[in-house]
Amino acid sequence: MAELLAGKVLVAQGGGPTAVINQSLVGVVLEARKFPHIHRVYGAVHGVRGIVDEDFLDLTRETTHNLEQVATTPSSALLSTRDKPDREYCQRMFGVLKRHGIHYFFYVGGNDSSDTLRIVNAEAEAVGYPLRCVHIPKTIDNDLVENDHTPGFGSAARFVVQSFRGINLDNSALRGVYVAVVMGRHAGFLTASSCLARKYPDDGPHLIYVPERAFDVERFLGDVDRTMKAYGRCIVAVSEGISDRDGRPIMTTLKQMGQDAHGNVQLSGTGALGDLLMDTIKEKLGIKRVRADTFGYLQRSFLGCVSDRDASEAREVGEKAVQYAMWDDVDGSVVIRRPVVDYSVDYELVPLAAVAGKTKHMADEYLNADGNGVTQAFHAYVRPLVGSGLPETHRLRAPRVPKG
Amino acid sequence: MAELLAGKVLVAQGGGPTAVINQSLVGVVLEARKFPHIHRVYGAVHGVRGIVDEDFLDLTRETTHNLEQVATTPSSALLSTRDKPDREYCQRMFGVLKRHGIHYFFYVGGNDSSDTLRIVNAEAEAVGYPLRCVHIPKTIDNDLVENDHTPGFGSAARFVVQSFRGINLDNSALRGVYVAVVMGRHAGFLTASSCLARKYPDDGPHLIYVPERAFDVERFLGDVDRTMKAYGRCIVAVSEGISDRDGRPIMTTLKQMGQDAHGNVQLSGTGALGDLLMDTIKEKLGIKRVRADTFGYLQRSFLGCVSDRDASEAREVGEKAVQYAMWDDVDGSVVIRRPVVDYSVDYELVPLAAVAGKTKHMADEYLNADGNGVTQAFHAYVRPLVGSGLPETHRLRAPRVPKG
Repeated sequence: MAELLAGKVLVAQGGGPTAVINQSLVGVVLEARKFPHIHRVYGAVHGVRGIVDEDFLDLTRETTHNLEQVATTPSSALLSTRDKPDREYCQRMFGVLKRHGIHYFFYVGGNDSSDTLRIVNAEAEAVGYPLRCVHIPKTIDNDLVENDHTPGFGSAARFVVQSFRGINLDNSALRGVYVAVVMGRHAGFLTASSCLARKYPDDGPHLIYVPERAFDVERFLGDVDRTMKAYGRCIVAVSEGISDRDGRPIMTTLKQMGQDAHGNVQLSGTGALGDLLMDTIKEKLGIKRVRADTFGYLQRSFLGCVSDRDASEAREVGEKAVQYAMWDDVDGSVVIRRPVVDYSVDYELVPLAAVAGKTKHMADEYLNADGNGVTQAFHAYVRPLVGSGLPETHRLRAPRVPKG
Repeated sequence: MAELLAGKVLVAQGGGPTAVINQSLVGVVLEARKFPHIHRVYGAVHGVRGIVDEDFLDLTRETTHNLEQVATTPSSALLSTRDKPDREYCQRMFGVLKRHGIHYFFYVGGNDSSDTLRIVNAEAEAVGYPLRCVHIPKTIDNDLVENDHTPGFGSAARFVVQSFRGINLDNSALRGVYVAVVMGRHAGFLTASSCLARKYPDDGPHLIYVPERAFDVERFLGDVDRTMKAYGRCIVAVSEGISDRDGRPIMTTLKQMGQDAHGNVQLSGTGALGDLLMDTIKEKLGIKRVRADTFGYLQRSFLGCVSDRDASEAREVGEKAVQYAMWDDVDGSVVIRRPVVDYSVDYELVPLAAVAGKTKHMADEYLNADGNGVTQAFHAYVRPLVGSGLPETHRLRAPRVPKG
């Protein structure tokens, strides 16, 4: 094999950035350098677009110190792309790979990136060009099948938890309804992780809505009303992708309810959904103090909020990808398993087709019957992922003074 | 004095919470306990409303350990209020204070709270009731006169800096225009602090707009266009309170430009302004990828993002307030001075009337001529306030590979 596949390694990053995606990149680079028959490690700039543009960095000329510093920096250091290559685009990529004698391609990405890799891999096999293709998982949405969880999710979830822990205190100091819109078009894992913000029984978020359950506006208003009566305040976590039972985004349906809305259905990078829910609550329930925040891009790129567990796993999937390609001479997608109850992980390589383009959703056992919260099972699932040393909140416990 | 004013201390927190406001609370409680003639330290629940409601906690029955834990917890542990007491409301407060034999009142708050305290103090003097009233500064807006800066600002600024450092990387990985709306109705200090996010010359934010300068939509569009041509991307920081030359909020003027807007002019807890700027850029400049985030309440209550310098100063202003009242037997407002260039602070007590209800704005020397950025003078002013150990970002420095 060392003969046949001697040569160059290419690594690239695709799709949305995460806080730990560079750990995987650095894992690939440092592990690949351990193999004597690998004389170059290239990085494609802006993902697959860097391949068709033949825009490569020679990472064998990068210092270990700087690589380690980049590893702890959020967002894709090789920059990214949203390009969704068709067969023709993939053939152009393959042509460039061939011209540079690249025999190993490692792509860090989510559903789309794994599918791209699957096609490139097929093209290479079709013409008998030896090209090892290994997909390295990442996504804050945690929606890759076969994986217990995905690198990037734990750190994003940690940000969501720290946000809601602070918001919970702010909302008790100045009471009212608070709605936070969290990323997640099809999977509610990130929104659901807000459950970890609760410490005391009356802590928020009091209501959690995810795309896996049809969102009914009337039932939602009833939930908010009950919560206000119970606690005098109400904190709501909703996924940007919540839809009605016909699968229509709530932003559209609320708009039809006569709400004042923005014309587009862009979900991220807009406060429209939160504002629509806020306006609906004000109008229908007559509550005065209602606030809405959309966490937006902070949740995937905020500097200084990383799950240590997430970071080390992101590093390991990069290293494992190289080891599978070099020692076993196979293609595939690295997946994370959680074999035991007391947290630990194993890595496996599964066929690209097993992961490519598929979307994982939250299991039923993770969502409560009312469709407005999560179960203890989900709490147990997500708790280890946000890592150690999660900052805590504390309350005064001094007794009331008798009235004079 | 120990005879005359023997008795009880009352402490309360007003207005918007900050990440370090409980440091001031705990500073008051622990310092007051050092004085033998003080046999009770009460805390009013929900600020001045807790006084008219006679809702007090006996903080002399709180453990030091728990007080220290509460000190490191963001948001007002005694809860807060937006009540703006009139003279009659203040008289009722004064009645309760008198009934409980409270001779010291420490109020942690901003402009409004200091004005409330001024009135209560006047009422007490009018009837010859000995009541020491000391205002303890706090506000993330940093807009209290007499103060070089205010407790709470440094930590909020740190959050803004860490946010923009991450956003800058995210926006380079997936390019386009990104607009972030930062808190600040009348003062732009918090928005301007985003300048500290820049490390490399092409880093964002590339454009910064604050309420101290009239916002011209056409000039803004020109600025964005130029930045896109220069860097292929553009990150904008705007204060929620930006207004046109006639002082009308931009949200209203954009609406008149035919933009699709929300009916209210609520600035915080809504994504409306960001979305309106986004829509304007898309429409007028024809740029496709435009995103807008409104940092919202995260910037004042996020758990786990505190400036160590801000925290220790917040503790000290609480301690100093007690010392002024006990040793000097005077009323007033504690202010923070910065005497020398190499950072250090002194504390002083000024008359309540010198601070009460007044608003500080950014000095001209802090804003550039074009009104779309800040100066080195502001950079030097704000850098020490965000504290030590600010997380850094790092880039790959590997050379490009020659095209094959």
